[in-house]
Amino acid sequence: MSSHKGQLKLGAFLMNTGHHVAAWRHPDAWAESGLEFAHYRQLAQTAERARFDMVFLADGVAVRRDQSLDALSRSGQIVHFEPLTLLSALSTVTEHIGLVATASTTYNEPYHIARKFASLDYLSGGRAGWNVVTSASEAEAHNFNREHHMEHALRYERAREFLKVVTGLWDSWDDDAFIRDKESGVYVDPDKIHVLNHQGKHFGVRGPLNVARPIQGYPVIVQAGASEDGRDFAASTAEVIFTAQQTLVEAQAFYADIKGHLAKYGRTPEQVKIMPGVFPVIGRSETEAKEKYDQLQELIHPTVGLTLLSGLVGGFDLSSYPLDGPLPDIPETNLQKSRLQLVTDLARRDNLTIRQLYQAIAGARGHRTIWGTPEQIADQLEEWFVQDAADGFNIMPPYLPAGLDEFVELVVPILQRRGLFRTEYEGRTLRENLGLTRPANQYNIPAQSSVTVTA
Amino acid sequence: MSSHKGQLKLGAFLMNTGHHVAAWRHPDAWAESGLEFAHYRQLAQTAERARFDMVFLADGVAVRRDQSLDALSRSGQIVHFEPLTLLSALSTVTEHIGLVATASTTYNEPYHIARKFASLDYLSGGRAGWNVVTSASEAEAHNFNREHHMEHALRYERAREFLKVVTGLWDSWDDDAFIRDKESGVYVDPDKIHVLNHQGKHFGVRGPLNVARPIQGYPVIVQAGASEDGRDFAASTAEVIFTAQQTLVEAQAFYADIKGHLAKYGRTPEQVKIMPGVFPVIGRSETEAKEKYDQLQELIHPTVGLTLLSGLVGGFDLSSYPLDGPLPDIPETNLQKSRLQLVTDLARRDNLTIRQLYQAIAGARGHRTIWGTPEQIADQLEEWFVQDAADGFNIMPPYLPAGLDEFVELVVPILQRRGLFRTEYEGRTLRENLGLTRPANQYNIPAQSSVTVTA
Repeated sequence: MSSHKGQLKLGAFLMNTGHHVAAWRHPDAWAESGLEFAHYRQLAQTAERARFDMVFLADGVAVRRDQSLDALSRSGQIVHFEPLTLLSALSTVTEHIGLVATASTTYNEPYHIARKFASLDYLSGGRAGWNVVTSASEAEAHNFNREHHMEHALRYERAREFLKVVTGLWDSWDDDAFIRDKESGVYVDPDKIHVLNHQGKHFGVRGPLNVARPIQGYPVIVQAGASEDGRDFAASTAEVIFTAQQTLVEAQAFYADIKGHLAKYGRTPEQVKIMPGVFPVIGRSETEAKEKYDQLQELIHPTVGLTLLSGLVGGFDLSSYPLDGPLPDIPETNLQKSRLQLVTDLARRDNLTIRQLYQAIAGARGHRTIWGTPEQIADQLEEWFVQDAADGFNIMPPYLPAGLDEFVELVVPILQRRGLFRTEYEGRTLRENLGLTRPANQYNIPAQSSVTVTA
Repeated sequence: MSSHKGQLKLGAFLMNTGHHVAAWRHPDAWAESGLEFAHYRQLAQTAERARFDMVFLADGVAVRRDQSLDALSRSGQIVHFEPLTLLSALSTVTEHIGLVATASTTYNEPYHIARKFASLDYLSGGRAGWNVVTSASEAEAHNFNREHHMEHALRYERAREFLKVVTGLWDSWDDDAFIRDKESGVYVDPDKIHVLNHQGKHFGVRGPLNVARPIQGYPVIVQAGASEDGRDFAASTAEVIFTAQQTLVEAQAFYADIKGHLAKYGRTPEQVKIMPGVFPVIGRSETEAKEKYDQLQELIHPTVGLTLLSGLVGGFDLSSYPLDGPLPDIPETNLQKSRLQLVTDLARRDNLTIRQLYQAIAGARGHRTIWGTPEQIADQLEEWFVQDAADGFNIMPPYLPAGLDEFVELVVPILQRRGLFRTEYEGRTLRENLGLTRPANQYNIPAQSSVTVTA
């Protein structure tokens, strides 16, 4: 069954040994995989074989230290590849799949970011995407000359200006600026160079960029912010929204809210793909799936679970509260407001103890956990897709590589049979596969039209 | 004939269509190659087939704008890949060759640099190197929120502190810190984590790094500074020095000076490899080589030559001086002092006009141009090597890929027959191939010894 929205989009959210907090302890896990290229090569090639739109890499520029040394010593996610270097390497061992890296606007400079993503876009033949984040931990501030993380509203103000600079730099050259005429000796048409000359509150950047205009015009812009600032920022600029939604009703409300905001920025609903995270546990029977999940849950050390929960509630220290008592009131924080809201809502709704709460969110860190047979998994994805809760999903396998293999071998064929997912890539670039138009160079938009795009 | 110093080292300095300023206009040049991965893949594989120690990529974080639009439009080097993304991609299509990227300490943050090079070291199985530069153009300042480039001495002060932070971050984890014991649930030994807690004049960086200690301990440190500050900085920290030397006598003096400075920092001559840049023009006869060179020289547009020369003399505007008159006195500048000295010395020594001067330096930009038959090229390299002017050479082909192919096919076999160059890689890592020891973790140096290294 095909929806009025076309087909759904799929991302493979890759993370070391998998998304479950105890994944590395799973008997099948390759615990060393965080710094093994062969592991990521296999994962990316598996996702490409299944015609996923993209692989997705999260990022933070610190080892999280808002935890005890005991908790830190039990984390399987503390060391890993830097995303832009890893995706550049993956660009050579894949041909079609999109390559989306997270990078922070709070702890980077726009010239570097514009350049690195443009470079990745050329390396990959037009498959780069940038997940724009504003960062969320004090630990990151401490690695970048600051005592405290930048205040929430200021972070978003900086992010808006950052994105303006980056897109301006990507437009430094017309698409046809490089003539390379050996006879006359003219390499670039001087009328097709655009110098940004940006002077703003946060940045002074002259340009031009020392990379040609990216193959995709702009690499695809991805965002995950779900706070009020984050939603507005996403509605104005994001082309893919990665979001954490627990229930169909909440997801539909978020979907409608974002799509409704787009007109304010002169954008259409098709220009933004909303892709909630999904943490799938797949079994031959529902019981087998549940057993798999319980096996992972049992591997969570209490120190780890509690630390993870504290992190999601803005670093609030929960260690003095009884594990089998309720979640206390958590004070307002300038960190990730949306995550705090999501976690406290979950605790109140299901009347969970602290222990139950950390178990509930340990795997998917606030994302939606679904389990069952392949048909049941496909049903749950289809339901959200056709009922306007999602344009696609960012798949977060509990353990890797097996969790991705299972999804690819068992669930994807069902989605394809139902006409919900592609069997061949439609285009050459990530942008084409996502059904997104290629942005025009802002310096070349004809006077008679405010937005012009070329397909 | 083998020297008392063992065998010489070779780097392949890759740059778009080649090092000659008019290379892109050469009939054989692939003018689009700056953003074509296939071009760089071919070059890196050619260099690896010949057993080169490393490929080397220069870098700047700006399009040079100290030139007229006419000059800019004639440059073949204005757009290119960002080096860390390119080398990450090259790591997957090569197995042995070192991968050295330039990155500036003036326009980066140490946490990012430590992390990206550590990530590249893991992607490549221990083949990363970092060419540390302090940058040299006003154009770069303008892309990073500054009106002017940082003053020379301050740049070096920042660079020293930057390197201290980066090496401290690389030592965040002991080599054997990661236990990954599934049974107990302990991933990392908490006694083997080292938190840097750096607070200095330029940086506040807490750490630890979110990448394990690099395979090489530290990626190989390369430097090119030749000013007094630059030499002292290199003597204290560099393991490979890339330098521009025109004559045997000058090169010997530089070599002796650097090697003599090492003891001051508790280092031995073997710990630093001095590799001057060489721009080889190879012909079946001396005449053919000269003709090849002249063919390239004729392709230099006067605007381009003059602009290049102005850039090497600190941006001083030469356009009002007669092309066929002498070089005027150039005022002191805070930019690259060493290059200014080198260019003015060259002009005075050979009594060159401005036109002759820009032609003389256009190809190799201040590096040594050698031409002749393959035997003559090999003789010139051997002379510098055995007479203590060099430990090896950074080869800068005039045009690419043919200039590298010629060197690999015609000159390398001669060097190998003479016992001057390897026929097989000795080690697994760049550090091993260069004959450099693996640095001990600074947190683990036994009390009885100030420096301990493991081979």
